[in-house]
Amino acid sequence: MAFQKPTGTQDLLPGVVEKWQFVEEKARDLCRRFNYREIRTPIFEQTALFVRGVGETTDIVEKEMYTFDDKGNRSMTLRPEGTAGVVRAYVENKIYGEPDVSKLYYIGPMFRYERPQAGRQRQFHQFGVEAIGALDPAIDAEVIALGYQLCVELGLKDVKVEINSVGNPASRAEYREKLLGFLRPMKDSLCKDCQSRMERNPLRVLDCKVDQDKFVGAPSILDSLDEESLNHFAKLKEYLDDFGVDYAVNNRLVRGLDYYTLTAFELKAQGIGAIDTVGGGGRYNGLVGDIGGPDQPGIGFGIGLERIQLILEHQNIDVSSLAPLDVYFVALGEAADREVNRQLFKLRQSGLSGERDYLGRKMKAQMKSADRFKARYTAILGDDELERGEIALKSMDTGEQQTVKLDELVAAIRGSK
Amino acid sequence: MAFQKPTGTQDLLPGVVEKWQFVEEKARDLCRRFNYREIRTPIFEQTALFVRGVGETTDIVEKEMYTFDDKGNRSMTLRPEGTAGVVRAYVENKIYGEPDVSKLYYIGPMFRYERPQAGRQRQFHQFGVEAIGALDPAIDAEVIALGYQLCVELGLKDVKVEINSVGNPASRAEYREKLLGFLRPMKDSLCKDCQSRMERNPLRVLDCKVDQDKFVGAPSILDSLDEESLNHFAKLKEYLDDFGVDYAVNNRLVRGLDYYTLTAFELKAQGIGAIDTVGGGGRYNGLVGDIGGPDQPGIGFGIGLERIQLILEHQNIDVSSLAPLDVYFVALGEAADREVNRQLFKLRQSGLSGERDYLGRKMKAQMKSADRFKARYTAILGDDELERGEIALKSMDTGEQQTVKLDELVAAIRGSK
Repeated sequence: MAFQKPTGTQDLLPGVVEKWQFVEEKARDLCRRFNYREIRTPIFEQTALFVRGVGETTDIVEKEMYTFDDKGNRSMTLRPEGTAGVVRAYVENKIYGEPDVSKLYYIGPMFRYERPQAGRQRQFHQFGVEAIGALDPAIDAEVIALGYQLCVELGLKDVKVEINSVGNPASRAEYREKLLGFLRPMKDSLCKDCQSRMERNPLRVLDCKVDQDKFVGAPSILDSLDEESLNHFAKLKEYLDDFGVDYAVNNRLVRGLDYYTLTAFELKAQGIGAIDTVGGGGRYNGLVGDIGGPDQPGIGFGIGLERIQLILEHQNIDVSSLAPLDVYFVALGEAADREVNRQLFKLRQSGLSGERDYLGRKMKAQMKSADRFKARYTAILGDDELERGEIALKSMDTGEQQTVKLDELVAAIRGSK
Repeated sequence: MAFQKPTGTQDLLPGVVEKWQFVEEKARDLCRRFNYREIRTPIFEQTALFVRGVGETTDIVEKEMYTFDDKGNRSMTLRPEGTAGVVRAYVENKIYGEPDVSKLYYIGPMFRYERPQAGRQRQFHQFGVEAIGALDPAIDAEVIALGYQLCVELGLKDVKVEINSVGNPASRAEYREKLLGFLRPMKDSLCKDCQSRMERNPLRVLDCKVDQDKFVGAPSILDSLDEESLNHFAKLKEYLDDFGVDYAVNNRLVRGLDYYTLTAFELKAQGIGAIDTVGGGGRYNGLVGDIGGPDQPGIGFGIGLERIQLILEHQNIDVSSLAPLDVYFVALGEAADREVNRQLFKLRQSGLSGERDYLGRKMKAQMKSADRFKARYTAILGDDELERGEIALKSMDTGEQQTVKLDELVAAIRGSK
């Protein structure tokens, strides 16, 4: 009987996992430069956190959560996104007591029970940032620029940002009425989800994938923005201009989550044929208060790492997949075998990487292993060399061979780096 | 209403998370040197995998698993340990078809519903390696040496390894009978768990925490080893001697899992007062076949990262917690503010790290921020300097101040590194 991974999950094996490491290291390095620091929150949280933090009328909460009772009969849910847990941790640990803006990032698995397809898994992975505590539009620009810069430095083609403002609560309230005036006459023609959501959250109706073509003539939220919202949006655009970020305004961009205020945005890149969304985010000035914290504004984004990998692959962007090995050892004879083992450990202790055969294979098969591991050197030890305290060292680049003292092996390889 | 993290889980916040990053980077670097490559398997798996792979009579499977039905009514379980998933992936992805020994490592969260205590969480984290495909005792020694070297390089005190052999199946069968002969007469005095497990798995009874003192006179498994098992064990000790690994034989060490054969070991270090176990592992020559794969031998270990953190803390081992920031920018005036934003982005694009104020604070408060971020430089821009295309750059180490051209700012800071 053989077991299989659950539907919608993946094994990341050597050869592929290095591409993930590469993207994550790039994200971590960008966060260092932008002064964001990592936060790790639990894989599961109380279910009520997501109902409150993500929103009752969202697809995520209505249909897609992995919810279960723990052995203490408390309802828990595998996190379906990253923001709710970070904001919960921000409140619970009173991070708001610190004098600086809280600039945080996370990388990790999320879970949604959806129909799996290319780039969409039930266990998927996101890199995200959250900046909590500042209203300054400069921080909106910084967050967007960080996501943009990641895509650019990964080598994605045609990186673009779409931005919009969904306004402050006053602007949204005004827009809501206008939008309802537009939507109500067509209610019967809309899909069931839209009909049931329309009165509770008409902005989310604009997000519906089924009915998109019916909303062409919908009023623009930009026409409902008050002065505060307009100023914030104008400043953001000014900063993005200064940064040279390639952006466009899309007044239909409202994002799927209930809690956005003011800035909303999506990161796009040349995907498989069409332009793909790699991530998105926005401002959430009410969220910290909603989940029990002080009235602190925030902004963040989440980027889908499966999506990034898919685009890298389809754009044939070469990501180094295997670091070369420093030395592959070959032992000829039993005494040599034991000495090789000792030398190998010494080499590894010194910071270099090394390998040997563990399968009793012939020399030819071992040399093939050395090739597969992209070894810079092979070090071959026979009983004769061992008696003289020496070892044969061969450069796999040049084919050049030299004899070095066993005691000087590590230094010889170090010196050649 | 405020939310709390689930009992037995932790938030790793900036200031602490860097200590985790440090340990993980060290583990990854050791794996590079020892030629182990990362594998990532799903957070949850079919429940049946763990019942088979961990063992029906284990505490883990009997009491501690996070098991739930997904929306398709399939029983899933959050992984309680790392080996079963890795071996499942090894079989399902036919990794055994590759010519070299499969040397794999993982780092990630695991889940067991236990009573939380210091160093033991319900969501906990392990670093583990698995070497699948070789019987050579040199690979046993390598795996043990990797774990040992990690503890040494982290700076843990009194790092020691306890080793044992639980024999091949023939030796174990012989020992099982001897042990039952010893245990049966005391059956009524043993704890309920031991009584119920005794006939199914008497070796596990020796692991019982409650009844330890009753087993002082128990027969030693080392007296039941056949020649093959003895040779394997002798070779292992020889290699560990060569490596200078500080080890001792403990013939009572049988580990909690059913699937171990031949080598079993634990990694220890000076803990809180007493010697603590930081991890352990062993050989599992039957496991790959048990979960539906070809008859391939394996060996691995798992190290508890919460345990490592606890020991680092109690031994007062200083782990760098915050990388210094390159530049903190201060803007005086609105035009300067916009230019600072632009300069900051340029600096970050160039690979350096930088920060500014987003809260409209006075200069004094901003300088305190620069201190908190351990800034190497502050760069102060007023409208006058801006007109001249210059900026004041102050070294926070020496207090020295210079004026540099805005265009040359990045180069000036790079040059000083």
